[in-house]
Amino acid sequence: MSVVQAEPTLAEHYAAIRSFTDRLTAPLSPEDCMVQSMEEASPVRWHLAHTTWFFETFVLAQDPGYRRFDEAFHYLFNSYYNTLGQQFPRGHRGLISRPGLQRIRDYRQYVDQHMWERLHDADDSQELAGLVAVGLNHEQQHQELILTDIKHVLSCNPTWPAYQELPLDTTCCSAAADPETISVDGGIYEVGHQGDGFAFDNESPRHQVLLPGCRIDRRLVTCGEYLQFMLDGGYQRPEHWLSAGWATVNQQGWQAPLYWVHRDDQWWQFTLAGLLPVDLRAPVSHVSFFEADAYARWRGKRLPTEFEWEVAAAQTPLAEDEPLVDTLVERNLAIHPTRSPSSMCGAVWQWTSSNYLGYPGYRPPAGAVGEYNGKFMCDQHVLRGGSVATHRSHLRTTYRNFFHATARWQFSGIRLAS
Amino acid sequence: MSVVQAEPTLAEHYAAIRSFTDRLTAPLSPEDCMVQSMEEASPVRWHLAHTTWFFETFVLAQDPGYRRFDEAFHYLFNSYYNTLGQQFPRGHRGLISRPGLQRIRDYRQYVDQHMWERLHDADDSQELAGLVAVGLNHEQQHQELILTDIKHVLSCNPTWPAYQELPLDTTCCSAAADPETISVDGGIYEVGHQGDGFAFDNESPRHQVLLPGCRIDRRLVTCGEYLQFMLDGGYQRPEHWLSAGWATVNQQGWQAPLYWVHRDDQWWQFTLAGLLPVDLRAPVSHVSFFEADAYARWRGKRLPTEFEWEVAAAQTPLAEDEPLVDTLVERNLAIHPTRSPSSMCGAVWQWTSSNYLGYPGYRPPAGAVGEYNGKFMCDQHVLRGGSVATHRSHLRTTYRNFFHATARWQFSGIRLAS
Amino acid sequence: MSVVQAEPTLAEHYAAIRSFTDRLTAPLSPEDCMVQSMEEASPVRWHLAHTTWFFETFVLAQDPGYRRFDEAFHYLFNSYYNTLGQQFPRGHRGLISRPGLQRIRDYRQYVDQHMWERLHDADDSQELAGLVAVGLNHEQQHQELILTDIKHVLSCNPTWPAYQELPLDTTCCSAAADPETISVDGGIYEVGHQGDGFAFDNESPRHQVLLPGCRIDRRLVTCGEYLQFMLDGGYQRPEHWLSAGWATVNQQGWQAPLYWVHRDDQWWQFTLAGLLPVDLRAPVSHVSFFEADAYARWRGKRLPTEFEWEVAAAQTPLAEDEPLVDTLVERNLAIHPTRSPSSMCGAVWQWTSSNYLGYPGYRPPAGAVGEYNGKFMCDQHVLRGGSVATHRSHLRTTYRNFFHATARWQFSGIRLAS
Amino acid sequence: MSVVQAEPTLAEHYAAIRSFTDRLTAPLSPEDCMVQSMEEASPVRWHLAHTTWFFETFVLAQDPGYRRFDEAFHYLFNSYYNTLGQQFPRGHRGLISRPGLQRIRDYRQYVDQHMWERLHDADDSQELAGLVAVGLNHEQQHQELILTDIKHVLSCNPTWPAYQELPLDTTCCSAAADPETISVDGGIYEVGHQGDGFAFDNESPRHQVLLPGCRIDRRLVTCGEYLQFMLDGGYQRPEHWLSAGWATVNQQGWQAPLYWVHRDDQWWQFTLAGLLPVDLRAPVSHVSFFEADAYARWRGKRLPTEFEWEVAAAQTPLAEDEPLVDTLVERNLAIHPTRSPSSMCGAVWQWTSSNYLGYPGYRPPAGAVGEYNGKFMCDQHVLRGGSVATHRSHLRTTYRNFFHATARWQFSGIRLAS
Repeated sequence: MSVVQAEPTLAEHYAAIRSFTDRLTAPLSPEDCMVQSMEEASPVRWHLAHTTWFFETFVLAQDPGYRRFDEAFHYLFNSYYNTLGQQFPRGHRGLISRPGLQRIRDYRQYVDQHMWERLHDADDSQELAGLVAVGLNHEQQHQELILTDIKHVLSCNPTWPAYQELPLDTTCCSAAADPETISVDGGIYEVGHQGDGFAFDNESPRHQVLLPGCRIDRRLVTCGEYLQFMLDGGYQRPEHWLSAGWATVNQQGWQAPLYWVHRDDQWWQFTLAGLLPVDLRAPVSHVSFFEADAYARWRGKRLPTEFEWEVAAAQTPLAEDEPLVDTLVERNLAIHPTRSPSSMCGAVWQWTSSNYLGYPGYRPPAGAVGEYNGKFMCDQHVLRGGSVATHRSHLRTTYRNFFHATARWQFSGIRLAS
Repeated sequence: MSVVQAEPTLAEHYAAIRSFTDRLTAPLSPEDCMVQSMEEASPVRWHLAHTTWFFETFVLAQDPGYRRFDEAFHYLFNSYYNTLGQQFPRGHRGLISRPGLQRIRDYRQYVDQHMWERLHDADDSQELAGLVAVGLNHEQQHQELILTDIKHVLSCNPTWPAYQELPLDTTCCSAAADPETISVDGGIYEVGHQGDGFAFDNESPRHQVLLPGCRIDRRLVTCGEYLQFMLDGGYQRPEHWLSAGWATVNQQGWQAPLYWVHRDDQWWQFTLAGLLPVDLRAPVSHVSFFEADAYARWRGKRLPTEFEWEVAAAQTPLAEDEPLVDTLVERNLAIHPTRSPSSMCGAVWQWTSSNYLGYPGYRPPAGAVGEYNGKFMCDQHVLRGGSVATHRSHLRTTYRNFFHATARWQFSGIRLAS
Repeated sequence: MSVVQAEPTLAEHYAAIRSFTDRLTAPLSPEDCMVQSMEEASPVRWHLAHTTWFFETFVLAQDPGYRRFDEAFHYLFNSYYNTLGQQFPRGHRGLISRPGLQRIRDYRQYVDQHMWERLHDADDSQELAGLVAVGLNHEQQHQELILTDIKHVLSCNPTWPAYQELPLDTTCCSAAADPETISVDGGIYEVGHQGDGFAFDNESPRHQVLLPGCRIDRRLVTCGEYLQFMLDGGYQRPEHWLSAGWATVNQQGWQAPLYWVHRDDQWWQFTLAGLLPVDLRAPVSHVSFFEADAYARWRGKRLPTEFEWEVAAAQTPLAEDEPLVDTLVERNLAIHPTRSPSSMCGAVWQWTSSNYLGYPGYRPPAGAVGEYNGKFMCDQHVLRGGSVATHRSHLRTTYRNFFHATARWQFSGIRLAS
Repeated sequence: MSVVQAEPTLAEHYAAIRSFTDRLTAPLSPEDCMVQSMEEASPVRWHLAHTTWFFETFVLAQDPGYRRFDEAFHYLFNSYYNTLGQQFPRGHRGLISRPGLQRIRDYRQYVDQHMWERLHDADDSQELAGLVAVGLNHEQQHQELILTDIKHVLSCNPTWPAYQELPLDTTCCSAAADPETISVDGGIYEVGHQGDGFAFDNESPRHQVLLPGCRIDRRLVTCGEYLQFMLDGGYQRPEHWLSAGWATVNQQGWQAPLYWVHRDDQWWQFTLAGLLPVDLRAPVSHVSFFEADAYARWRGKRLPTEFEWEVAAAQTPLAEDEPLVDTLVERNLAIHPTRSPSSMCGAVWQWTSSNYLGYPGYRPPAGAVGEYNGKFMCDQHVLRGGSVATHRSHLRTTYRNFFHATARWQFSGIRLAS
């Protein structure tokens, strides 16, 4: 899949992506930006600061003449880079009220000014361009987390306030009773990143895989289909579940996807636009790997491996009008998946059956940047495809997202294989 | 002890106390007011709303014509009144970002306006006056909690920001080597509230107690004396400690009072004015019941019972210039205990050896107000005397404060008996 | 109450009490004696060893010529004496399979032989007699714990095996609709231990208390009465409960006393003789302080203080045929409370409203023995009266038992005051 | 690798394997057999009963005329088969003292007699033979668990008692400074079970994999090599560890492999023969996946995938004199790994880099037997090769063992690839 864009300068690209973060956080109050609703999530203010810290640390501070905005931020806004010293405990991010939101916005501005100068001075440097590309893709990952984390925060509020009260995209395609499938023949394929575009280290080395052949559904599992699973006792019957999944269902009391609420004999779901009735034709979202796997088993199918997914995705180019976060923001529409995309990308991330491991020959880069991906390659599960909260320029078919089997607060859904 | 004040009208009294809350919270940002740093504490914004909810619920909403500011607040800002329906889970108070701080201030203003009208219309009503008195004393309790809770919040920040950077009161009296004592002869005494002034239900019924006779130190234990205990291995030697206290020392890794920090071969403490060197002449503060009890045992003394304390306190009238929160705020001084008061009240709350139980014949009032005190009479420990964070008009010698044996975030110190 | 007995020699007394422990554990297999079913309880084998360790440590090992049975036992079977060095972690007692039960019985025999010699040589020593008296009373406390701990162990087994399948005592007196009461007039009383007989340090100093006057029920609350509380929604209505009690009810899912089981539309209870129908006329047992307090509140009454209880008990001498553990074992009857005693002692321990604190002037003895009682005087609640599992020679009206407010595995019941 | 044996009848095979279990448990007392030292392990008595339950449930009880030994056992000794009804909570297995060990041995005998009759009557049945083969391989898995679980139990005892005080195998080969390697060329290979012999369902379907080519060490990592990692700050330097591994190191306080003890300036390890000095030439054992992975990273190498391992293992036939549990028991030697085997099997299980997932096309069998393997295919890690505690007849190169990344109580070690 190729995502074509007019090529801006690096400085323009930097400015565009950084300002999109501001646009996403504009509807939020200083209070909204304070909350950490669970250990895995972070306060929005922390995202704003940490992405800035990334540029300051990996780009600006390489210059001995650079003066840090605030020395304390180096400790406060490091996420998990052991190489860079001790980190502030992750679960306590919501306890830090100072610096306040305005000072964090000042920090962004300060770093942006210095970055702007640096990028104008030195935009022929290959190494700088590489670091900035990592930083911008990192920023885009946090843009998506800002949306999913604030959704979780607001869902803890019994008044269910909306992030933004906007209408849904209404161009919903009808969900056919039986989805068409994409065929992948058995054989040897090349997978992983190639070419000049940006990719994370975990998408390399490109390498060969042997696939046995399979068929993959052209569309995502819908809320209506998932409701059938629920009505058939899906959450009450252990035979559909992995052992650890069944334990989680019982410990957490799961009865439906996250954010689904049963009220007045109807299913509602909390969205970034507030509490809305579940649309049975829309793709199901906010399910864990365990739920995706159990649903597939119940249907007599299975999840695709990440390589089956990647090979199939090459056959389905991304539609230009796919409603992703950039388009939705521009069109003043709610950020919510309303229809299955025509390609395999968009709407919701799709759980695969693959564990998140390094590709053959993979070695993390040296230094702190090497902590970006490699050290998380344990007991996490690969998702592919991007979601309604992913920026178009951030999507690609080799992209590997990863979460634990219990995670539900991302826009994560199901595509079946057989 | 009698605290004499010119008698304002009830409405003026209401206005004065409510606006003192605003004054205390003026230095805080919306971000500061969001944080709940532990289950036992609450965000400042919650204190602001809950105290207002109290007047709305127990006074205004008794009038069927009253229109609530926001129906959702009834659930959000109930603390623990089962009689009034389900409560929002205590430990999740820090997750609620909406209503924001400004809207909570609007809520205060709305309720204050209605209260003002009500108090002007009906200030002859005895029952109304009684309810308002409970509400205002309740507000004053939360004023103290606002200070102790925000102190704990700010202490979680590795940059140790000050609540207000103000100078300490410098009129520190020197701590004599051997404190003088107050004698209480053996015999029958009357204890508990009497007279017309306000008192909480847990201070009644007034009743007789038989005391064996004792001597109580005229001044509080100082930081210097407490440091001797530490240097003598106080936190390493189990023989000084109650069994549960010793377990807590080891589980929590206690080595010093809360907020004490050892740095560059010196002891510092976090205060509302930031990180300051420990003044060895000042009363020790932020110790738990376990530490107070262990210290007393190490000194070969003991803590007084709450009745010994109350009887002795009758002999020592409160000094007019005692630096309590009202005076300190007025004089632009830091809210921090710097000297032992000449009376038994002020500086720090003093742990007694008494468990918090109902007095003989005590019955909680009927209805929701009956949940105020009675249901907490289990495994908590009585503190007496008020602290630097207690308003002068809220102090009295029959006042019973109570906390669990492990609590350290109040301004709690030690007075010895023998 | 005076418990008269023909006076055996100290050595005979020692032998009688030690062999009663053997008799109580005779029905148990090595496997039964291994289990620690909760942190607060201990394996029976541990009780057998620890009580022996007590004599070895505090009596025999004082003689430098004595050779310990096994050096490792000093560490393994110390309970909580910090003065005597580190202790094996309490919650791990059930993990130690060696020494096996037979070797522990050999240990008992070894120590008994040495004690027998020591007691014959030196039975004129006052100090020795005092230490042995503590050791024997300590042994009797563990005899009761052996019964309550093994009851808890066996209750974890879904087949509900009996400790011994023996008949119940059938001489059950009928429970009158309205219990008679014992009057205690207001005034000054002396309480606490006096005279020559043995008492623990926590029963002294004898001292005066001022009582306001009260009436105490002559009989215990029955299972039938308690069932009324349950049927009236006792476990569903927060207004009856202390705040911490209500939290416990919900966290633990309490719906009835411990060991009660609802089956086939009937209430059963697990007893040392197996699963039996609840006898509505028998005293209710295995309730926590929280349940006792809530029941009293629901009845519009209250629990007595420990001093009210003690003064009233002086009026009701223990019946000679009171079915206590010594009588029941002799008569081959099940150890289970079947009727309210005619005195205030027997059947079940009775929760009082008093916290467990030292009496005025109380100081723990010097040395390791000083750790026996004093260090537990925090947030525990006094029970009085002994139970069906208490040996007659261990009962006295000044005796202070104490447990946390949540404890239910003792034979603990309710006597009301008003 | 083919393991050749003279073919006994099925009944003889059954008798031999069942009696080997008795031989392994002969040194243990009823007390030893009671203990469950952690949630993941089980009491030996439970292993004895559960393996018997397996034959009773899946073979004998299929005959309607069969009378169960004890109806309660069906619930007590089910491990995790949801299809067969509720299970007794896993973590509570150590609380059940009845049936006692002797009755469990009677249960074994009862079932063995019935099995013996059944196998003589019907040894031509293919389906029966298949079920019995599963049961016997299941029994052999539990034989290994009996050894690893009792080792953990005994290690909790501060006196470190031996399972059996036997000498070590002294035929230790010297560990060469640089291990030779086995080459695996890049290409397509077939992996998974084939042929007539027994294999578990998770070893099928046999399928093709594409390997990039690698070299695998011929011998295991030794204690001496691992000690170098420790001395180089292995447990103090986050850069060697997966993120979750580093968190575990800090939470658990890991400083060395499980059972290693530092004492008198020397490293000792607890073994089934008691506490012995660490032999630096012997293979390191009792390391977690996290430790194996960190060690490999520190060495600049990596763990093999399970398919690299399997392909390489085909080149190295198992030596006939490999000291496995059957040989060691026969020769009265301690069950402890003392040397690297000449083949890739034996001594210690070897962590691979592969997650435990189903092979392409894998479907669990229908019915309860289908719960054997499939439902555990989530976030566990494959180990290959068998250990000193594995019976020779249970070893094969396609065998997939699996544990969580933190597990250390198996005989698990490290073989490197590059």
